[in-house]
Amino acid sequence: MFVTETAIRIHYALTDQMGVVYYGHYAQFYEIGRTEAIRQIGYTYKEIEAMGIIMPVVSINSKFLRPAKYDDMITVRTTLKTLPDHHEISFFSEIFNEAGKLLNTGEVVLYFVDAQTMRRRHIPEQLREKLAPFFEG
Amino acid sequence: MFVTETAIRIHYALTDQMGVVYYGHYAQFYEIGRTEAIRQIGYTYKEIEAMGIIMPVVSINSKFLRPAKYDDMITVRTTLKTLPDHHEISFFSEIFNEAGKLLNTGEVVLYFVDAQTMRRRHIPEQLREKLAPFFEG
Amino acid sequence: MFVTETAIRIHYALTDQMGVVYYGHYAQFYEIGRTEAIRQIGYTYKEIEAMGIIMPVVSINSKFLRPAKYDDMITVRTTLKTLPDHHEISFFSEIFNEAGKLLNTGEVVLYFVDAQTMRRRHIPEQLREKLAPFFEG
Amino acid sequence: MFVTETAIRIHYALTDQMGVVYYGHYAQFYEIGRTEAIRQIGYTYKEIEAMGIIMPVVSINSKFLRPAKYDDMITVRTTLKTLPDHHEISFFSEIFNEAGKLLNTGEVVLYFVDAQTMRRRHIPEQLREKLAPFFEG
Repeated sequence: MFVTETAIRIHYALTDQMGVVYYGHYAQFYEIGRTEAIRQIGYTYKEIEAMGIIMPVVSINSKFLRPAKYDDMITVRTTLKTLPDHHEISFFSEIFNEAGKLLNTGEVVLYFVDAQTMRRRHIPEQLREKLAPFFEG
Repeated sequence: MFVTETAIRIHYALTDQMGVVYYGHYAQFYEIGRTEAIRQIGYTYKEIEAMGIIMPVVSINSKFLRPAKYDDMITVRTTLKTLPDHHEISFFSEIFNEAGKLLNTGEVVLYFVDAQTMRRRHIPEQLREKLAPFFEG
Repeated sequence: MFVTETAIRIHYALTDQMGVVYYGHYAQFYEIGRTEAIRQIGYTYKEIEAMGIIMPVVSINSKFLRPAKYDDMITVRTTLKTLPDHHEISFFSEIFNEAGKLLNTGEVVLYFVDAQTMRRRHIPEQLREKLAPFFEG
Repeated sequence: MFVTETAIRIHYALTDQMGVVYYGHYAQFYEIGRTEAIRQIGYTYKEIEAMGIIMPVVSINSKFLRPAKYDDMITVRTTLKTLPDHHEISFFSEIFNEAGKLLNTGEVVLYFVDAQTMRRRHIPEQLREKLAPFFEG
């Protein structure tokens, strides 16, 4: 299992007139979480794109338990539960407030796609090698 | 069953550097779809809020089949499959491009909540009455 | 002078916890206004990009007079005060609510840039020809 | 003069299909910059709102010199050039990339407004006292 945590400060643009974070913005938090997860294993999503691979999202499942609010410093815990071994990768996000309360969960599935042919392809071998140690033993 | 359709033009702000609509923006399309659905039965979400009722989202399930692109005129088809009879309402959205291709599906569940007490409450009776004829027979 | 008007319904995502439209979203309204202005002369911004020309924004000046609110149907009046004759084009936007009150003004200056060389270039001749009749006499 | 700096990582949601940050998102960077500036003097904008004061934006002037790009770690330098002594406060933002190149400048003017009466009011005395030492001598 591979787990990382990223902190995000809620700025005004993310709130709506209910006085909480607009539900559509959680997808950005998941994105920031998985980007920092990739960075933590010594890679960047930018480098993946530079290799001619894009990673479109194919599905999201979100649950909204408690609202995030203006100026909250939320924590996005991003978990890779299984080591990807083909064209699919699934990130599981849990979002907590400063009091440690769980606000939101989101599962985001992405494909590895060849940017030229727009066809699915396997996870890049280098990325898989960096992730493998977290799933051993 | 209650079905409405709303057209949305994709402007530049909604695209990302993959050259398609950013995955996080579909939640806005679902929102616009359900708002226009409510308007079509002779109501507005604004009036619901003025009655002291808010409708927080409790879950989303989205599938991304094909990307929406810049300047596409997409159609959001919003369906209420069952008449709500307690605190929950579920909108099912399908997004099509101009060629009639299905791009995305989303199911959004919301609760009716009393804005004062922040407790769940039944769907407002007036709203239920307006919807009932679509589910008869 | 070339003037067009476009209507935009304010959805929830555009509001913030002050209960009004977030100030950063007006730039989108200006964008929608100028895109529809270009469409009205029988062109699309998409076609301009397909010709290998991009139009980055180089400056904005905005004044916020009154707030736009949730569910308002605002009108963006977009004016081209002078016919562009080199690499620069300047759109002037005025945003009104349904009561005809002026909410916001914005002046956005863009350059015509060759997407290959990233150098400024003249306005495309076809576009200039379509605009010219509005500035005659 | 009062100067603070804040770093922001550009995530995917902020890019557009030109491959750069959408021009409308810079207003968010200015907002984050001035919020962190206020925090640095031992205050929060959230506390100002809790005192019954809101700070609507009344104007923006932005210049776009170079584009910010995906995954850039930009720095927002926020400067208060004069100590506010009535209802108006003006923040000047400069945005730099990691190479120290100036990408964007923005001047944002806000008013102090009583949230109850919606009338302009003076800067809160406590806030002015915290700022005063930076403008002495």
